Amino acid sequence: MKTVVILVNPKYGGNLGAIARNMMNFDVEELRIVGTPEILDDEAYIRAVHAKNILNNAKFYSKLEDAISDIDFTVATTGAVCGDRNVNRVPITPRELAKKHSSISGTLGIVFGREDDGLKNEDVELCDILVSVPTSNKYPILNLSHAVSVILYEIYFESFSKDIPYDLNMKNASVDEKNALLRFFNEFVDRSKDVPDYRKDICKTIFKRIVGRAFISGKEANSLICVFKDKCPK
Amino acid sequence: MKTVVILVNPKYGGNLGAIARNMMNFDVEELRIVGTPEILDDEAYIRAVHAKNILNNAKFYSKLEDAISDIDFTVATTGAVCGDRNVNRVPITPRELAKKHSSISGTLGIVFGREDDGLKNEDVELCDILVSVPTSNKYPILNLSHAVSVILYEIYFESFSKDIPYDLNMKNASVDEKNALLRFFNEFVDRSKDVPDYRKDICKTIFKRIVGRAFISGKEANSLICVFKDKCPK
Repeated sequence: MKTVVILVNPKYGGNLGAIARNMMNFDVEELRIVGTPEILDDEAYIRAVHAKNILNNAKFYSKLEDAISDIDFTVATTGAVCGDRNVNRVPITPRELAKKHSSISGTLGIVFGREDDGLKNEDVELCDILVSVPTSNKYPILNLSHAVSVILYEIYFESFSKDIPYDLNMKNASVDEKNALLRFFNEFVDRSKDVPDYRKDICKTIFKRIVGRAFISGKEANSLICVFKDKCPK
Repeated sequence: MKTVVILVNPKYGGNLGAIARNMMNFDVEELRIVGTPEILDDEAYIRAVHAKNILNNAKFYSKLEDAISDIDFTVATTGAVCGDRNVNRVPITPRELAKKHSSISGTLGIVFGREDDGLKNEDVELCDILVSVPTSNKYPILNLSHAVSVILYEIYFESFSKDIPYDLNMKNASVDEKNALLRFFNEFVDRSKDVPDYRKDICKTIFKRIVGRAFISGKEANSLICVFKDKCPK
């Protein structure tokens, strides 16, 4: 599976250079940036060392939505873990992501937020799953480039160690199949007379998160569509 | 087991600051430096952010031998893996180190060499074991602070994951909560006039598997019950 790193509004060129170097260290080539090319300053190129081509080939976008439009599986990263009260912020570990990574096909996009305040809730909502690096409660927030390093290392190490425990026969759902399932579920919830209106949005969010965390297959998505669709082909 | 980070003749204060921050992120407090305090420049303190105390409490030594004299188990790190011809340079992975870490007692010292040429053979000979972070052949050499980050992360994660096997702060659904969700889903599928009978069982199985793979929380289970229940409390 191809991995793409997506940075949302990074502030410091130095971090970008360090990230490019880490990407090359762990065999990841494609960098996308929500922002403008001015971020690529001298410090970025100095800290990229031998990975300057990754900076030269970086693609720029004005919105995260555009940057991930062709990505099959999108991972939001967070340093801020709020427990299970905020359904949008229930993460898996980088190791769990790495274990699942080898069993899914297509393009994996890993989205990192800005250095000081991370990803906004509306950015996280665009993604399939949330990942957080376990850190000390005393000082949980990693520097951006070090968070990238740990996550890319986990994914690289999983293929390096050639220890693939997960079900290789499963072909993961494409972005279209997943979106269709979510759309039918959402329409189903909207039609429901049993779910109070104030609960509808939270139910939709939870279902999306569960589908993301479970890395569902195309066959699974299509089978469940049948459950939520108004009329299912007989 | 207590972990100590030992840097041999580091060149850049910025790296020291980044290393101090990473140490605090992964609950490691003690920094020893073979070198002189002049290395702690403004850049070091800026990049340490909230971990300035680790820099303030760093101990300085003139020789590696002195810096590790009271360390029970000393690990040399290398980015240069020369295969099995040089017996001094046959490393284990950070993951193997992390797994062993929990079974040894006393103080673990992890020794990192200088940014440009790493540890000398005579430094490696002073240590009990050699560790190398697996990286791409295309660009194997990690930045010093990122190498520290990956190795400390592996050790931290090993103890972390013993306590909490899955998601970070998420309280997993109890078996009763999960079974209740599955029962309500199954009854919903049975009531459905849109799902053909021959498809009902496969839909139930798929939903059960997805719920299992997603390690859902109690809150999530209860919210979705509301979607599938015949009458939901208003």
